[in-house]
Amino acid sequence: GTEGKTSRGILERLDAGEVVIGDGGFVFALEKRGYVQAGPWTPEAAAEHPEAVRQLHREFLRAGANVMQTFTFYASDDKLENRGNKQRFTGQQINEAACDLAREVANEGDALVAGGVSQTPSYLSCKSEDEVKAIFMKQIEVFVKKNVDFLIAEYFEHVEEAEWAVQVLKTTGKPVAASLCIGPDGDLNRVSPGDCAVRLVNAGAHIVGINCHFDPETCLKTVKLMMEGVKKAGLKAHFMIQPLAYHTPDCGCQGFIDLPEFPFSLEPRILTRWDMQKYAREAYNAGIRYIGGCCGFEPYHTRALAEELAPERGFLPAGSEKHGNWGSSLALHTKPWVRARARRDYWETLKPASGRPMCPSMSTPDSWGVTKGHADLMQQKEATSQEQLKALFDKAAHSH
Amino acid sequence: GTEGKTSRGILERLDAGEVVIGDGGFVFALEKRGYVQAGPWTPEAAAEHPEAVRQLHREFLRAGANVMQTFTFYASDDKLENRGNKQRFTGQQINEAACDLAREVANEGDALVAGGVSQTPSYLSCKSEDEVKAIFMKQIEVFVKKNVDFLIAEYFEHVEEAEWAVQVLKTTGKPVAASLCIGPDGDLNRVSPGDCAVRLVNAGAHIVGINCHFDPETCLKTVKLMMEGVKKAGLKAHFMIQPLAYHTPDCGCQGFIDLPEFPFSLEPRILTRWDMQKYAREAYNAGIRYIGGCCGFEPYHTRALAEELAPERGFLPAGSEKHGNWGSSLALHTKPWVRARARRDYWETLKPASGRPMCPSMSTPDSWGVTKGHADLMQQKEATSQEQLKALFDKAAHSH
Amino acid sequence: GTEGKTSRGILERLDAGEVVIGDGGFVFALEKRGYVQAGPWTPEAAAEHPEAVRQLHREFLRAGANVMQTFTFYASDDKLENRGNKQRFTGQQINEAACDLAREVANEGDALVAGGVSQTPSYLSCKSEDEVKAIFMKQIEVFVKKNVDFLIAEYFEHVEEAEWAVQVLKTTGKPVAASLCIGPDGDLNRVSPGDCAVRLVNAGAHIVGINCHFDPETCLKTVKLMMEGVKKAGLKAHFMIQPLAYHTPDCGCQGFIDLPEFPFSLEPRILTRWDMQKYAREAYNAGIRYIGGCCGFEPYHTRALAEELAPERGFLPAGSEKHGNWGSSLALHTKPWVRARARRDYWETLKPASGRPMCPSMSTPDSWGVTKGHADLMQQKEATSQEQLKALFDKAAHSH
Amino acid sequence: GTEGKTSRGILERLDAGEVVIGDGGFVFALEKRGYVQAGPWTPEAAAEHPEAVRQLHREFLRAGANVMQTFTFYASDDKLENRGNKQRFTGQQINEAACDLAREVANEGDALVAGGVSQTPSYLSCKSEDEVKAIFMKQIEVFVKKNVDFLIAEYFEHVEEAEWAVQVLKTTGKPVAASLCIGPDGDLNRVSPGDCAVRLVNAGAHIVGINCHFDPETCLKTVKLMMEGVKKAGLKAHFMIQPLAYHTPDCGCQGFIDLPEFPFSLEPRILTRWDMQKYAREAYNAGIRYIGGCCGFEPYHTRALAEELAPERGFLPAGSEKHGNWGSSLALHTKPWVRARARRDYWETLKPASGRPMCPSMSTPDSWGVTKGHADLMQQKEATSQEQLKALFDKAAHSH
Repeated sequence: GTEGKTSRGILERLDAGEVVIGDGGFVFALEKRGYVQAGPWTPEAAAEHPEAVRQLHREFLRAGANVMQTFTFYASDDKLENRGNKQRFTGQQINEAACDLAREVANEGDALVAGGVSQTPSYLSCKSEDEVKAIFMKQIEVFVKKNVDFLIAEYFEHVEEAEWAVQVLKTTGKPVAASLCIGPDGDLNRVSPGDCAVRLVNAGAHIVGINCHFDPETCLKTVKLMMEGVKKAGLKAHFMIQPLAYHTPDCGCQGFIDLPEFPFSLEPRILTRWDMQKYAREAYNAGIRYIGGCCGFEPYHTRALAEELAPERGFLPAGSEKHGNWGSSLALHTKPWVRARARRDYWETLKPASGRPMCPSMSTPDSWGVTKGHADLMQQKEATSQEQLKALFDKAAHSH
Repeated sequence: GTEGKTSRGILERLDAGEVVIGDGGFVFALEKRGYVQAGPWTPEAAAEHPEAVRQLHREFLRAGANVMQTFTFYASDDKLENRGNKQRFTGQQINEAACDLAREVANEGDALVAGGVSQTPSYLSCKSEDEVKAIFMKQIEVFVKKNVDFLIAEYFEHVEEAEWAVQVLKTTGKPVAASLCIGPDGDLNRVSPGDCAVRLVNAGAHIVGINCHFDPETCLKTVKLMMEGVKKAGLKAHFMIQPLAYHTPDCGCQGFIDLPEFPFSLEPRILTRWDMQKYAREAYNAGIRYIGGCCGFEPYHTRALAEELAPERGFLPAGSEKHGNWGSSLALHTKPWVRARARRDYWETLKPASGRPMCPSMSTPDSWGVTKGHADLMQQKEATSQEQLKALFDKAAHSH
Repeated sequence: GTEGKTSRGILERLDAGEVVIGDGGFVFALEKRGYVQAGPWTPEAAAEHPEAVRQLHREFLRAGANVMQTFTFYASDDKLENRGNKQRFTGQQINEAACDLAREVANEGDALVAGGVSQTPSYLSCKSEDEVKAIFMKQIEVFVKKNVDFLIAEYFEHVEEAEWAVQVLKTTGKPVAASLCIGPDGDLNRVSPGDCAVRLVNAGAHIVGINCHFDPETCLKTVKLMMEGVKKAGLKAHFMIQPLAYHTPDCGCQGFIDLPEFPFSLEPRILTRWDMQKYAREAYNAGIRYIGGCCGFEPYHTRALAEELAPERGFLPAGSEKHGNWGSSLALHTKPWVRARARRDYWETLKPASGRPMCPSMSTPDSWGVTKGHADLMQQKEATSQEQLKALFDKAAHSH
Repeated sequence: GTEGKTSRGILERLDAGEVVIGDGGFVFALEKRGYVQAGPWTPEAAAEHPEAVRQLHREFLRAGANVMQTFTFYASDDKLENRGNKQRFTGQQINEAACDLAREVANEGDALVAGGVSQTPSYLSCKSEDEVKAIFMKQIEVFVKKNVDFLIAEYFEHVEEAEWAVQVLKTTGKPVAASLCIGPDGDLNRVSPGDCAVRLVNAGAHIVGINCHFDPETCLKTVKLMMEGVKKAGLKAHFMIQPLAYHTPDCGCQGFIDLPEFPFSLEPRILTRWDMQKYAREAYNAGIRYIGGCCGFEPYHTRALAEELAPERGFLPAGSEKHGNWGSSLALHTKPWVRARARRDYWETLKPASGRPMCPSMSTPDSWGVTKGHADLMQQKEATSQEQLKALFDKAAHSH
C-alpha cells in the first residue's frame, strides 16, 4: 500500500507547536554522487537508479528528517522535454517512481511524504495561466494517485506563478506549503517578501516560506519579513525555511546562481555542522517550526539541525548513534591537542581556514548591473580624458 | 562465488602502463552520511548497514574507480576493541562483510578487490613485532578466504610498522601495495620518503606510495621523493597516490590531524572537481599510474580523475553520463552569464571565494612546537623586562 | 602679515562649480611621524615641533590641496586639559601657532586657510549649551585674530553639538562648513543624515558633509543621503566629503573606532592611490565639489584625488612632477613584467593581496550589541539544555 | 663643519655588543610624500627639496635611529643619466647635498653618517670591473670630502658587484658594511647566502647582511644562513638586517619587485608596529646587532624597533614621548572597549583584517617560470586532447 504508517499529519504537528525537520537538497547531493546532471537538474534518477535515490532518502531519515520530499524537482513535462537528451522514461513514470521511493523510506520511520512542484519553463516563456496550471495538474494527478501526505510548491522566483501552483494544489484537499527562492529584496518583479507571503496565504497556502538561492542568514531575514507581512495583514500561517548549505553574503537579488562559483566551485562556501546548529537555533528562536535545507545539504547537515533542536524535540535522530555531542567523540583521541577539541566552545568559535591563500573571501556576482555600468562609465571616461590627462602629465614631468 | 570476473590483475595493468583509478575515502564519506563515528573511525557499518556501504562502492565504481578497497580501515581487533561501545559484530564478521560488499560491486564493472590493513594501536603501544604481525594476520586470513585480488597496507606513519605489514601480506602470494601517510619530511621517526620507499620495496611491496594526511600537491611532492629514492637505489616499483580532498598548505609534519579544523570544520578546504583534474594530470605527468583518493573524496572527485585521464585511458566512466566536459552542460542555461561558464578556461582559472570574510586563509597547526616555544619565550621576556620598559615609557612621557 | 595672497574665497570657488581639494588627516600622519600621541590625539606639535607640521602642510599643498586646515583638532581648552601630561603650551599658543603654520604654507600656493573646531568633552559630559559654546568661542577668537579664510566645524557625532558650533562660527561673518563623522544610519542619537544636513544648513552652514570614521564608499553613501535631505527640504548647500583612507566595510554605526584594529593595526586596510582615484571620480559624479580626506590620508592619497580630477580642474598638482599617469613611470623599468604594469587597467583591476594568510578579510566591531546579546543567549541556552542534551547523546550512543 | 659630534664609531659600538638601530627606506617614504618618482627611484630631492629630506632624517632620528644614511641611493652618475628627464643638478651636487643633510641631522642626536652606494646599470650592462669601480669611486670621493663616519654598499643582487664595491670603499680606510638584496636561495647567480657572506668578508667588509626585497622573516632566515657560512669558514663579522616593511610570504627569488602589487598597491602588506617589535626581538635573539629597515619603513616602524630593544639599550627614543608602551595611551579612552585594548597581549595576538573581502591573501609573482611553464603545458595538452575528450563526452551523454 502507498499509505503512510504515521497518523499525525503536517498541520497537526505544526499546530501542536512541534518542530518539523525537512530533508536536504537532492539534485546537488545526487549530482555529486553521479546521478544528476548540473544544468538541466532533472530527476530521471528516480526511475533510472532507484537504489541511489532510496539510499539518500534513508540517510536524511536517519539524520532526523520528518519529511521525505518526492524527488520530483523540475519533473514537469515541459521541463523534462527541454533537457535535449533522448528520454528513457516518461514524466509520469519519473513522478510515480519518486513517490514510491519517498513512501518506502518514510515508512521506515516517523516521516511524511510531500509531493513537490517547482517553477516551470512555461511560466518563464509567458504561457497563459491555464497552460501553466495544466502543467502542475499533471504532476498533481500522480501525487493524488500515490496519496502523498501533503504538497509543496517550492523554488518559485515569481510569486504569481507560486499563487497559480497553490491554487492547483489546493484542489486536492491536502495541506499545501509554498516556498519561494527569493531574498529580502523580494521576487524578481520586486514584490516584497511580506507581500509575497500575504498573497500565498490568500491563495490558500497553510505554510509559507523560503527555500534555496541564499544562505541561512539571508533566508532567515527573508522569512522574518514574510512573518511581519502576514502579521500586519491580520492573517495566520505556519512558516518554513530551507536554505542553501553555502555561505552567500555576496549574493545579488538572484541568489547563488549569479555567483561566479555556481555550480561547480562552491566548495569553500559549504557550511559546517556547527554553522548549521547556529542556523537551527536562530530559525527556532524566530518562531519558524518547519526547518530544513536545500542545495548543498548533506545528511550530516540535517542531523546537525536535529541535534541542535533535540532538547526541544526530546529525542535525537538515529544517525546520532554515530555522532557525539559537539565533538565529544574526540575525547578519546590519542593526541592531546585533538582531545582538547572535544568541546562546544572550540567548534563554536573556530574560524575555519580555507587553505586557499590565492582566493578571495567574496565574489562579485556576474549579473550586477552596477558593475557593468561602472565599467562602461570608466571606458567612456577613458576615451574622453585619457589623452588630455597624458598631456598634463607630460607637461608636469618636464616643467616643474 | 567470491571470485572476480576480471581476468586482468593489478600488476598486469600497471606493467602494461595502464592508469588505475583508486576509489575515495570511506570513513569520511560515511561519517557525513551517518554511518561512521569521527574519532574511532571504525568500519562496523560494513556489517551494520551494508546497503550504505554497497551504495558508496557503487558510486565510486560509476565514477571510474578500478579498485574497490574493502571497507576494513581500522578493522584490526585491537583497534575495534578500543572503541568503547558494546560490540554487535566481531572483527571477523566486519572484515568478511566488507569483502563481500567490495566483491559484489566490483563484479558489476571492471574493478579489482583490494583487502586493506592499516596502522595498529599495538604498534603505537610498543608491542613486539610478533604481536603486531599477529594482528595483521587475523585480517589477512579473511582476505585469503574471500579471495581478494590484491592487498594494501596503507595509512602508516612509521615505515617500520609498514614493513612488518608488507612481510605478512607477502605470505599470501598476492600482489602487495604499501602506502604511508607521511609528507616530504618523512615518517614520524624522520626516515625520508626516499628511504621509506626503498625499505618497503625491499620488504616485498610491488607498489609503493602515499595516502591521506596531505593535499594532492604535497602528496605528489612526497611520491616524487619516493620515486627518486627507489631509482637511486637501483630498484624498481610501481607508484600510487591517494591524497586528501582538502587543501592543506599550512600543515605541519603530521598532516591535517593537527589543523584546527580537523575533523569537523574542513569544509572550506574541499577541493573542487577542477582542482582534481589538475591533480590527476600532474600525477600522471610524474609517472604515477595508480591514482586515487582518501579522506574527503566524494564520487564526483573520483570521476574528475577519470575524466581528466580519459584521453589516456580511451574511455569515460559511467558516471560521466551525468556530467559534461568542463562544465559544458551549462551551455543551455537560461541566463547568458551562466551559459558563459560552459568552458574550460572559466573553471580552470576561477579563484573560488569562501563566502567567509571573517575567516583566514591559513591556520596554524595545533602541535607546532615552535609556536609553543615562542609563547614561552615571550612570557619569560615579559616577566623580566615589562616592568623595566614601563618605567622607561613613564620617564619618556614626562621628560622630553 | 597673516592675510592670504589668494583673492578667491571658498564660496566663490564652489559657487563657480570648481573642485576644491581638501588636505589629509594630520593626527594620524603625525602620529606615524612621531609628533602626536594616539589616544589623546591633541595637536601640541603645532607649538612644539612646528617644522614637522609645516612640512606636512607643504606636502599636502604640493599634492594639490586647496585648503590648509589649521592643525587645531581637539585643541579646545577642555580637551587639552584632559590629556594628563603637564602642559608646556597654552591652548591659545597652540591655536595661534597652528594658524601661523597654515597661513605660511597656504601662501606658497593657491590655498585657503580654514580654522577648525571639533567635538568637545564638555558636550559629552552634558555641559550646558552656553558652556559648550564658550569653549568654541575661545578657539574662534584666535581664528579671527589670525584672519583665517573660512571655518570648519568637523568631527561631530551629535548634530546638536555641531549646530551649536555652527552658530558660534557664524558670528564671525566668515564662510562656515559643517562636517559630521556619522554613517548612513545617522548620528549617535539616530538623527538621519538627511535631517542632520537640514539642521546644519538651517543653523547657517554654507557647506555640509561628512568626515572621518568611515571609508570613502560609506561616506559617499552618507553625503548622498544628506544631499537628498537638503533637496527635499527645498534648501541649498554645498557639499563636502573627507573620509578615512581605510577600507571599513565591516564597521558598525560608530565607525572605525570600534574595529578591533583601531588605531594601531589598521595597515592592511589602507587605500591605494587607485582606490583614491575611484573615490574622487565617484564623489565628483555625485555632485560633491569639496573633496578631501581625513585619518590615514598621506600626501600621495591627496595627489591621487588631484590627478583623477585634473581633466576637470585643468591642471595637475606640483607633486605630479614626481608621479606618472596611472603608473606610466614604470614604462622604462628593466624587467619586462614590471614594464607591463605601466597602464591604467592593470592597476584599476588588480586585487591586491595582503601577504597575511592567517588574517581575515573582515572583523567584528567590538561594540556590536548584537554579538554580545548572542553570546549571552548562547550561554543561557547552554545552562538550560547542555546537560539534557548530553543525556540524550549518551542514550543514543548505547541504544541504537 | 661637517664632522660629527659623536666620538664613538660604528665598529666601537658593535664591538661593544651594543644594538645599532638603522633608519628606514627613503625612496618609498619620499615617493609617498611627493619627492621621488617610482621607477627611476633617484634621489634628486636631496638637492631639489632639502627641507623634505631633512625632515625625514629628523623623524628617523627621533624614532631612535643611530645611523643617518646619506640619501644617495641610485645616485651613481650612470643611473642618474638614465632617468630620461633633464638634469637640474649634477651627480656631485646631489651626493654632496645628501651628505650635508645627513650630517646636519646626525649632529642633533647620537647618530652616525653612513655614505651609501648601490648596484649600478653599468654592472648590469656588463661593463668591465674597472669601469664599474670608477662609478663607485666618484661617489666615494664625495663621501671622503664630506667625511662620513662609515660606508655602506647596499642593494646588490649580485655578490660580484658588491665585492667590487667593497674593494673600492676599503680604499678610504673607513669601516665598510655590505648588504645584499637577496633571499635564502642566494644571489641572482645562485651563489648561496653563506658563500656571499664569506666573499664579502674576504673582500674586506666589517659588517655584512641583507636589505630590501623581502620581509623581516625572510631576511632573518637569509642573514642566519650568512652567519652560518661565515662561522663555518672560520671568519668573523658583524651582521646587519634592513628588511622591507611589507609582508612577502609569496615572493619568488627576486623579491617584492615581482609581486603584482609592486610598487603601487603594496598597502595591504604593510607591517604594523607590533609586527616590527616581533622582528626586532627575533633579530636580536639571532645575534644580529645592526637592525634597521628599508622600503616601506616609516618613522613609527623604526620607533617600534627602538622600543622593543629599549630594555637592552637602556633608553627609549625621543619619539616615544608621543607613544605609549604597547598601546598604553588608550587606557584613558572614553569607550570601555577601546580602553580594553591598552595591553600587550591584545595587540600581540590580534590578526588584523584587510577590509578587502574581494582580495586574496597571497599573489603569484609575475616572473614565476613555473607558472609560465605550466600554462604552456596546459595549452599544449589542450590542443592534443580537448577534441578527443569532447567526442568521448558526447558519446557518454547519449549512450549510457
